[in-house]
Amino acid sequence: MPRNTPIDEPWSAYIKEVGLNLQRLRISKGLSQERTAYDAGLSRYTYQKFEKGESMPGTPANPSLHNIMAIAQVLEADLEEILPRPWPDLHAR
Amino acid sequence: MPRNTPIDEPWSAYIKEVGLNLQRLRISKGLSQERTAYDAGLSRYTYQKFEKGESMPGTPANPSLHNIMAIAQVLEADLEEILPRPWPDLHAR
Repeated sequence: MPRNTPIDEPWSAYIKEVGLNLQRLRISKGLSQERTAYDAGLSRYTYQKFEKGESMPGTPANPSLHNIMAIAQVLEADLEEILPRPWPDLHAR
Repeated sequence: MPRNTPIDEPWSAYIKEVGLNLQRLRISKGLSQERTAYDAGLSRYTYQKFEKGESMPGTPANPSLHNIMAIAQVLEADLEEILPRPWPDLHAR
C-alpha cells in the first residue's frame, strides 16, 4: 500500500467538505444529482458518493482529476470554489 | 466502460500540458523527481508518469485529486498554476 494512501483522517474530513460544496453548488444551479452526474459522464451512484465524500462506507472519496474537473465544468465552478482552503497537509509523513 | 472515460484526445493533450507544468514547476524549485515523489507520498515511477502525462504508453494519465493536491503542495503551487486554461470540454458527449 503506498505510504500516503488517502485514508487518513484529515483527508477524510476534507473530502466530506468538498462533497458539501458540490451539493451546495449543484443546488444553487437547480440541478439534480442525476443531471449533474449525466452531464459529467458519471453514474448517479458515483456522483452521489462524491457528495457524501465516501467511495465506500468508511473509505474517503478520492475522485480522479478528470472527474472533479468535469463536475466543476457542469457546475460552472472553479476548483477553488470546490476545494476549500486551507487544504489538509498532504505531504508524506 | 463509463461513457466519458478519460481516453479522448482533448484530455490526452491536456494532461500532457499538465505534466509539462509539473516538470517546469519542479525544476524551478530545484527538486528532483525522486524528492518530489517522496514528499508527495508517491513512487518515483508514478510521479514520472504524471510528468509524461501517461499512465501507460498510449493511455493518458488521470491522477487522483489527493495525488495532484499533494504534488501541488510539495511544489508550493496552486492548482490554477498546474491546470492550464482553457480546460478541454469534459462534458459527456
